[in-house]
Amino acid sequence: MTVLILTGQEDVTADMVVMHLNAASVPVVRLDPADLTAGAALSGEYVHGSFHGHLSTGGRLVSIHGLRSIWVRRPGVPAARAAQPSAWLTEEASQALYGMLRGCTARWMNHPDAARRARHKPWQLRLAQRSGLPVPATLITTFPQAAREFAERFPDLVVKPVSGAHPQEPPRAVPTSRVAPDTDFSAVAYGPTLLQRRIAKRADIRLTAVGGTLMAARKETPADADPDEVDVRFATSDVPWRPAEVPPRVAAAVHTYLREAELAYGAFDFAEDADGTWWFLECNQSGQFGFIEVETGQPLARTIAEWLARPAPRDHEQTDGRHTVTP
Amino acid sequence: MTVLILTGQEDVTADMVVMHLNAASVPVVRLDPADLTAGAALSGEYVHGSFHGHLSTGGRLVSIHGLRSIWVRRPGVPAARAAQPSAWLTEEASQALYGMLRGCTARWMNHPDAARRARHKPWQLRLAQRSGLPVPATLITTFPQAAREFAERFPDLVVKPVSGAHPQEPPRAVPTSRVAPDTDFSAVAYGPTLLQRRIAKRADIRLTAVGGTLMAARKETPADADPDEVDVRFATSDVPWRPAEVPPRVAAAVHTYLREAELAYGAFDFAEDADGTWWFLECNQSGQFGFIEVETGQPLARTIAEWLARPAPRDHEQTDGRHTVTP
Repeated sequence: MTVLILTGQEDVTADMVVMHLNAASVPVVRLDPADLTAGAALSGEYVHGSFHGHLSTGGRLVSIHGLRSIWVRRPGVPAARAAQPSAWLTEEASQALYGMLRGCTARWMNHPDAARRARHKPWQLRLAQRSGLPVPATLITTFPQAAREFAERFPDLVVKPVSGAHPQEPPRAVPTSRVAPDTDFSAVAYGPTLLQRRIAKRADIRLTAVGGTLMAARKETPADADPDEVDVRFATSDVPWRPAEVPPRVAAAVHTYLREAELAYGAFDFAEDADGTWWFLECNQSGQFGFIEVETGQPLARTIAEWLARPAPRDHEQTDGRHTVTP
Repeated sequence: MTVLILTGQEDVTADMVVMHLNAASVPVVRLDPADLTAGAALSGEYVHGSFHGHLSTGGRLVSIHGLRSIWVRRPGVPAARAAQPSAWLTEEASQALYGMLRGCTARWMNHPDAARRARHKPWQLRLAQRSGLPVPATLITTFPQAAREFAERFPDLVVKPVSGAHPQEPPRAVPTSRVAPDTDFSAVAYGPTLLQRRIAKRADIRLTAVGGTLMAARKETPADADPDEVDVRFATSDVPWRPAEVPPRVAAAVHTYLREAELAYGAFDFAEDADGTWWFLECNQSGQFGFIEVETGQPLARTIAEWLARPAPRDHEQTDGRHTVTP
């Protein structure tokens, strides 16, 4: 049984995981969907009620039936490196590859449907509430009047994008920024705006979940930090990330979140306030972990490798030749 | 409790359903995501562990909590008609709208995740096999040698796109066509190709599923039909669609398919052979039904309206203020 990693060739984070899989003698195939039709190939046959499919890349042939797990790491755009790339070829190659893989019984980190749903920040906030995580008061609106009233109730505010990175090439992260309560909110009418009560934070928390394993890291906010430096990704602090204990209530809520979101991997960002409360900011289903592993020594790559190496669920095909549906 | 229909303004098929909902005095709001920020607006607030959201369009305001069902009919690209449209605004508006709607308890026809998955033809074929529907022998491949061997085993073949319509503007349907077994298959290496055993058909079958209700229509193939006219969408026959009985085995398999696919609506295409067997060709989760209703008199629009009008599942929020997760 083979582990399939969908990612580009330049991916040192994937290299870390592959190293652990190699050490455990677990077969791995690494495929970049961008290589399809030029370097990577696929074939699947539906005959007499059953399916037999294969992928080929780098001179290796792997049976789709023989996949134990699929790690969707940083896959390229399907067929992007074909001799004559086109939107049509990308669509055909995408449907062929992911359509075949979706029909197999391998375990996914993360399943494409769960990954796509998990990117919706409004959905994240609601699920976090329902899972029992504290969520800072938040408004997403195109009504200027709603923004004004919210700013009166919660004068210490930040603004951030609803969707995440700006879709330019390369994608540009848009920093979370403070916004003054007397701001002119009339431009809110021209695009959805996410306003959130600013948490006066004592530390940033990054909690990485791999299957049922939770590992938290904490980066203390310096006492003299500029309160306008809201976004840890853009902060100038050189305080390192340190391992942190996960409070049991947070752990229980995170497990609920992951189960409902059907995620095998998630990188949660929290802001820790002066009372020690961890406020949910977001959960990135494909968040980086290399920098956390380097600074804390937490064995994230090894834990991912162990999750990927677990056997696939049994195929529910029965020996009498009939098939039952596998969910 | 309101029915939300996501579609463009020019949609006579939606008009048919709205007419039935109006007749039953069920409140309906019709919103085109393309109108967001210019004509349509949204707002959602996450405070103290709960969510309150609203949509506004055409001067009407509707609570997201008060939606009983959401019909994703032919929604426009979010914010496409904004004063200054952009990829970024579309992404922000899409995440805001669908992110809020995904968090609510309304029933979907069809849920965006189920709809997206259901478009993958390789996945459809595998699920049809597993559900017990006869599937013509099919090969999807980028290996020319695999195509040649398949053509030797199944010399009477058709070729069709893996993904569906060509993504030009407006989308162009690519007809299914016959392919001679001595075809030069070397070009298969440049793009995934779907080859399928041609069913010598006696009729085309369109089975429309609305919730648990199945309605089939049959269009007989004229005895003198050109066997090269494989694709009913492009055929010149003026034989009308007529209502047909659904064989019990097909009905059971279709119910399994819909349950596993988590689809509330599906338009199945079958080819009926000389033995009366219905061969699964595809299931279009957003297939048109107006032409079937017009020719057969089957009450498809009314059945959809009835499905949409059913009450939403109860919100699992408890009266003590705690929240449990609703799946």
